[in-house]
Amino acid sequence: MSTQNPVFIPGPTNIPEELRRAVDYPSIDHRSPVFQEMLAPVLAGLKRVFMTKQGETLLFPGTGTGAWEAAVTNTLSPGDKVLAARHGMFSHRWIDLCQRQGLNVQVIEEEWGKGAPTGAFEEALAADRNHEIRAVLVTHNETATGVRSDVSAVRRAIDAAGHPAMLFVDGVSSIASMDFRMDEWGVDIAITGSQKGFMLPAGLSILAISPKAKLAMASAKCPRCYFDFRDMLKLNASGGFPYTPPVSLIRGLDRSICMLETEGLHNVFARHFRIAEGVRQAVSAWGLKLCAKEQKLYSDTVSAIVVPSGFDGTRVVTHAAEKYGVAFGVGLGEVAGKVFRIGHLGSMTDVMALSGIATAEMVMADLGFPIRIGSGVAAAQEYYRTSCGSVQTKAA
Amino acid sequence: MSTQNPVFIPGPTNIPEELRRAVDYPSIDHRSPVFQEMLAPVLAGLKRVFMTKQGETLLFPGTGTGAWEAAVTNTLSPGDKVLAARHGMFSHRWIDLCQRQGLNVQVIEEEWGKGAPTGAFEEALAADRNHEIRAVLVTHNETATGVRSDVSAVRRAIDAAGHPAMLFVDGVSSIASMDFRMDEWGVDIAITGSQKGFMLPAGLSILAISPKAKLAMASAKCPRCYFDFRDMLKLNASGGFPYTPPVSLIRGLDRSICMLETEGLHNVFARHFRIAEGVRQAVSAWGLKLCAKEQKLYSDTVSAIVVPSGFDGTRVVTHAAEKYGVAFGVGLGEVAGKVFRIGHLGSMTDVMALSGIATAEMVMADLGFPIRIGSGVAAAQEYYRTSCGSVQTKAA
Amino acid sequence: MSTQNPVFIPGPTNIPEELRRAVDYPSIDHRSPVFQEMLAPVLAGLKRVFMTKQGETLLFPGTGTGAWEAAVTNTLSPGDKVLAARHGMFSHRWIDLCQRQGLNVQVIEEEWGKGAPTGAFEEALAADRNHEIRAVLVTHNETATGVRSDVSAVRRAIDAAGHPAMLFVDGVSSIASMDFRMDEWGVDIAITGSQKGFMLPAGLSILAISPKAKLAMASAKCPRCYFDFRDMLKLNASGGFPYTPPVSLIRGLDRSICMLETEGLHNVFARHFRIAEGVRQAVSAWGLKLCAKEQKLYSDTVSAIVVPSGFDGTRVVTHAAEKYGVAFGVGLGEVAGKVFRIGHLGSMTDVMALSGIATAEMVMADLGFPIRIGSGVAAAQEYYRTSCGSVQTKAA
Amino acid sequence: MSTQNPVFIPGPTNIPEELRRAVDYPSIDHRSPVFQEMLAPVLAGLKRVFMTKQGETLLFPGTGTGAWEAAVTNTLSPGDKVLAARHGMFSHRWIDLCQRQGLNVQVIEEEWGKGAPTGAFEEALAADRNHEIRAVLVTHNETATGVRSDVSAVRRAIDAAGHPAMLFVDGVSSIASMDFRMDEWGVDIAITGSQKGFMLPAGLSILAISPKAKLAMASAKCPRCYFDFRDMLKLNASGGFPYTPPVSLIRGLDRSICMLETEGLHNVFARHFRIAEGVRQAVSAWGLKLCAKEQKLYSDTVSAIVVPSGFDGTRVVTHAAEKYGVAFGVGLGEVAGKVFRIGHLGSMTDVMALSGIATAEMVMADLGFPIRIGSGVAAAQEYYRTSCGSVQTKAA
Repeated sequence: MSTQNPVFIPGPTNIPEELRRAVDYPSIDHRSPVFQEMLAPVLAGLKRVFMTKQGETLLFPGTGTGAWEAAVTNTLSPGDKVLAARHGMFSHRWIDLCQRQGLNVQVIEEEWGKGAPTGAFEEALAADRNHEIRAVLVTHNETATGVRSDVSAVRRAIDAAGHPAMLFVDGVSSIASMDFRMDEWGVDIAITGSQKGFMLPAGLSILAISPKAKLAMASAKCPRCYFDFRDMLKLNASGGFPYTPPVSLIRGLDRSICMLETEGLHNVFARHFRIAEGVRQAVSAWGLKLCAKEQKLYSDTVSAIVVPSGFDGTRVVTHAAEKYGVAFGVGLGEVAGKVFRIGHLGSMTDVMALSGIATAEMVMADLGFPIRIGSGVAAAQEYYRTSCGSVQTKAA
Repeated sequence: MSTQNPVFIPGPTNIPEELRRAVDYPSIDHRSPVFQEMLAPVLAGLKRVFMTKQGETLLFPGTGTGAWEAAVTNTLSPGDKVLAARHGMFSHRWIDLCQRQGLNVQVIEEEWGKGAPTGAFEEALAADRNHEIRAVLVTHNETATGVRSDVSAVRRAIDAAGHPAMLFVDGVSSIASMDFRMDEWGVDIAITGSQKGFMLPAGLSILAISPKAKLAMASAKCPRCYFDFRDMLKLNASGGFPYTPPVSLIRGLDRSICMLETEGLHNVFARHFRIAEGVRQAVSAWGLKLCAKEQKLYSDTVSAIVVPSGFDGTRVVTHAAEKYGVAFGVGLGEVAGKVFRIGHLGSMTDVMALSGIATAEMVMADLGFPIRIGSGVAAAQEYYRTSCGSVQTKAA
Repeated sequence: MSTQNPVFIPGPTNIPEELRRAVDYPSIDHRSPVFQEMLAPVLAGLKRVFMTKQGETLLFPGTGTGAWEAAVTNTLSPGDKVLAARHGMFSHRWIDLCQRQGLNVQVIEEEWGKGAPTGAFEEALAADRNHEIRAVLVTHNETATGVRSDVSAVRRAIDAAGHPAMLFVDGVSSIASMDFRMDEWGVDIAITGSQKGFMLPAGLSILAISPKAKLAMASAKCPRCYFDFRDMLKLNASGGFPYTPPVSLIRGLDRSICMLETEGLHNVFARHFRIAEGVRQAVSAWGLKLCAKEQKLYSDTVSAIVVPSGFDGTRVVTHAAEKYGVAFGVGLGEVAGKVFRIGHLGSMTDVMALSGIATAEMVMADLGFPIRIGSGVAAAQEYYRTSCGSVQTKAA
Repeated sequence: MSTQNPVFIPGPTNIPEELRRAVDYPSIDHRSPVFQEMLAPVLAGLKRVFMTKQGETLLFPGTGTGAWEAAVTNTLSPGDKVLAARHGMFSHRWIDLCQRQGLNVQVIEEEWGKGAPTGAFEEALAADRNHEIRAVLVTHNETATGVRSDVSAVRRAIDAAGHPAMLFVDGVSSIASMDFRMDEWGVDIAITGSQKGFMLPAGLSILAISPKAKLAMASAKCPRCYFDFRDMLKLNASGGFPYTPPVSLIRGLDRSICMLETEGLHNVFARHFRIAEGVRQAVSAWGLKLCAKEQKLYSDTVSAIVVPSGFDGTRVVTHAAEKYGVAFGVGLGEVAGKVFRIGHLGSMTDVMALSGIATAEMVMADLGFPIRIGSGVAAAQEYYRTSCGSVQTKAA
């Protein structure tokens, strides 16, 4: 696999030069003021990215899965009930994690390709007269299906049901790439990793917690130590860390936040929309459909493209890797073989996206898909060249 | 704090050029054969470093603490009894972790500066007629006190007591720097991190487990998901990972193992002994003592030096950082203020060690310690120059 | 200007990861055996790349221009006559350099877009009864016009005229990218730089000299010191250098030669042809023409594309940079404004080339060129996808 | 040779992290505004480092030797007379270069270890009634002998003789490390390279020229093209370069100037003095002498240490490299074997210097030199620890 071409997996993303430099650094003493002066601005910057003023942010050496585990073990007790929908591989795996931590998960099965079922959530919450449901779990962006759920609608459903449940959001493939508003949407815990919107190597579990979630810490009885919020919050307060911190990724995160804010979060989101929309124009020109069932569900970070009947989505990915040295994402779980995915998040330009679209097109032609070579690229080019200026004007 | 000078903390260590390059790499598709071909040799190489043929090795994004948590949650159930001694900050913290995971820890308090109390362990095990003790926990190298414990003696004690307990070893600051023999010593789980003997940035929990420990997985009831051996072993078998792997550190680990084996593990240990012995010659020339009570306990990766009565070990560390831009380790826990620590593990040469010794000497002179300037350096120089050739001859 | 997108200038090229690593290295002692052991294999490897067994190779800190100066000052004397054709900016500049070094240049003016005028050379040489012409200068690949000249035909012309003139070749934008055979073609001096086919940063003048050229050193009276072959050859023989060598670039060159030979020079040339041919298919689909007048003159490293009458080639380049963050080459000298250039040499894949073609297409559409969006990309895609496999088969 | 230990050669120096990052960068289009915006501040910053307001600065891909060649060929004509003293390898080589460029060098032989002979210069200039001497050449810091000459005294000698000769200064191993004042000292051309005080890899010839030197360009008849000031000045004025610029080193130079000015040039010089003085205290404690004959001649960038009679200085260097992996400098020319050199310029701390001193001491002990182990280090430690604070206070 060549390292010359960009990757088009839905994370880890392409890493900008500036972040590679920030991460590649000699060892420093993490018990010295140097580290203390590094950590606090990063935690503060994360609040701005998560759009929370009242919440607190935490970092653990880990991944998104670790962040999930941290979220539930720090706020819940074995046997506690949580409400979740299964409509993709990542919502599925979060449910599995909760069950293995001894939680009682009320699962709503939803079609893969649809979003979080707000109505069903509201019903379930309304039916929960004793308020046994402690938290509602939402996957903001289902990376497996390229579906964005409406988190604020879930909050409204909770509130409409007059329910005190907390709202936990998996923002692994949305935060720092797509609009996310922790405080405004009433999110109690939001989690992500370093290798998506933050454009860094994998290795950091990143969380923000609301005052309500923080309060839940005291009564939570799930055993925990490595991911314990209490040690982390206590030590962070004086610039410390409960064990050896991953200094190089934290340095990288500092620069990442700076890059995001220099571009402007609003512009980062707009860029992701534009690049995604170019991909969607190509999909449309190919006569294909996205896995996401409706336009309002379309993810701006990953597009899961349904292959025509009789074709194999996984073959698209292996062929692209073998013949062209380009990485796309395979379908996972229920949509394995039925889709292939183009990741278009993080460090990405129109020009890079076009090379991914062009490659996908060549692959499909090679495999005999009924598409016309050049058609998708042309549609994307037309979209990019006409939309590019106006966005840049707004950014200025 | 300058990045020009080496660090003399007991980890993270100085990172060799070659490993910095290996870690600093563009994103690849971790679901592709490229990753599969990367992972297997690393896991195999780790077995050679841990000196186990029958065991299996695992990697998690995490730290040594994460590895501790993985070790106990994958093999034990809440309420299970384990036996441990507290004789330093890291053995203390491991005990705390076990307690927070719901284990029943039988703690033997031992003086800080002494090693694992083999006799007391044997007594406790002999007294445990019902074999309730499921595991004995040993900190091979107490980083806080610079004490190396005799792991094989603990195994002999367990066997002498005819006890079936497993033997878990914290090798965070010993493995890949000091002689460690998993199979020969009958160790069931050994853990470490990436930032010590492997000379990488922090971010990897590294474990090796014996067939007996693996068997214990099935009955272990501690809740776990992120650190679950079962998912990891199952997926690793086909080159997969249960979540996004920290590819850059795994690449680095591959090169690290290669560097260690190119030098020869035997030579790596001999080098650590030599460099440590030079530091000890200096300590002796200064008329000071190590925290480690006996010569046989002396660690080859970190020396905790007891400051004269009336002086403050922590001040040595802050003064070295502020005036000379050099990082040493402070005393932790019971020995806070009473010692300062010189880390001498990982990527280190005689020449680098001399600059650390010379700096410590200047700092002590600055602070009015009753030492003669140049005395420690001279003792170390004399040791290094006379021992250097012979070791190199052996290495050839 | 983004560093995310590839560059499409005809050098410096995109630098592969592996070469960036090789160049980024701590200082070493260039008077030590480490340097001696580094230099000799590089000089030997260069011979293989230049395809010379009887010649010798030399490196100076400098550029292609420096190599030109080295070539003429080390083999000629003020007043000596050389024969050259002017048919592009780089042949023009070489002539200028010779004149400033006091040489008497017999200039044949040729149309820009044509190659070295073999017939006119033969006539001039035949007319030179007294054999006053000491050397014939040929620009193998005119970077300004994207024209490849037939060097072996020039050698045949010299031989046909029974003339003893030496043959000097500017291979700056051909060597290590396009077929070049020093010995077989009877070349006496060939020169290049580090930043083209060798895919390194600029900073090295690279030369190969035949035994005949070496013999000419003794009588050459042009003053020289920095670029003096005599000091360089003498000191190189024992691993030395007449002044501080650019160690990092020499390390890079070592890896570059290794990369080229691992791919296979034959495959490197075939890849350059394929990538260039894709660009040419796009040009043809756009209904445009290359500056190069005939197919046999087409360069495989750079394409100079003639813009339609009434349009400005330079505007293509500035617009691409400003709106899309992509670098192309402007027209130089006589073809300024009349062409824009796509560089496609060095570290380049089909996928990268497609992003350049797609960008050029968007730019031309933005500027109102009479081209159909997607047409060039589609033609290139079709060519790449059908030609890709066969070449890879040959490479295996 | 290890890359773990610092180098103690008198250039190339140890390269700071920040400069390695700046140099390691993807290719950019050197004809774009990006390069134009990079070059001008570097040229302006160089003026501040050279301490010239009225002069102009120039950069060529090359070395100090290239800068010498540029200096004389751009301002003089074949047959022109220049005045120079030979008192070390580098003054010797500059004389040789002038002779090969056809200049008539009036050479004053001076003892190696002494400085530029101001008195002899004044006599020679006074005797030159017809003002045939066009330039006086001074090696500010003779790297071979560790001798700093008094450049301002040479200017006074020229003026005292009422002579219009230009003053050319080789500042290769002084500029950016030791006090140098172009305008105040009436220097007409000063030259250096990137690999000394600027702490970068080798590869840049750096010059500053006075208005008088610039005026001399017009009449200079030495043939030149690669190093021609006229093209360079003309193209630099609009952000251009006469050929492919070494962009990565120019980027590095930008950061280097920033680092120097952030520390403060005055503090940079003071640091070099302090570090050098520590080395000199060690030499004195060893009972050895410097090659430099008088205290006022002591260089702050390199110390050439005379070995006791019967010992071999070159052996010190090879032994240090082979046994300890540390690079020192050998004696060159007339002092070959008689001295060894410790380079202490560029990126250097007290702590790094101590490791070099300690190593030299071990080497000398190994080779049977009559020195006491630890003595030199102790003297340097004592000096560093007592002088460190005050300098840092001044810097604040």
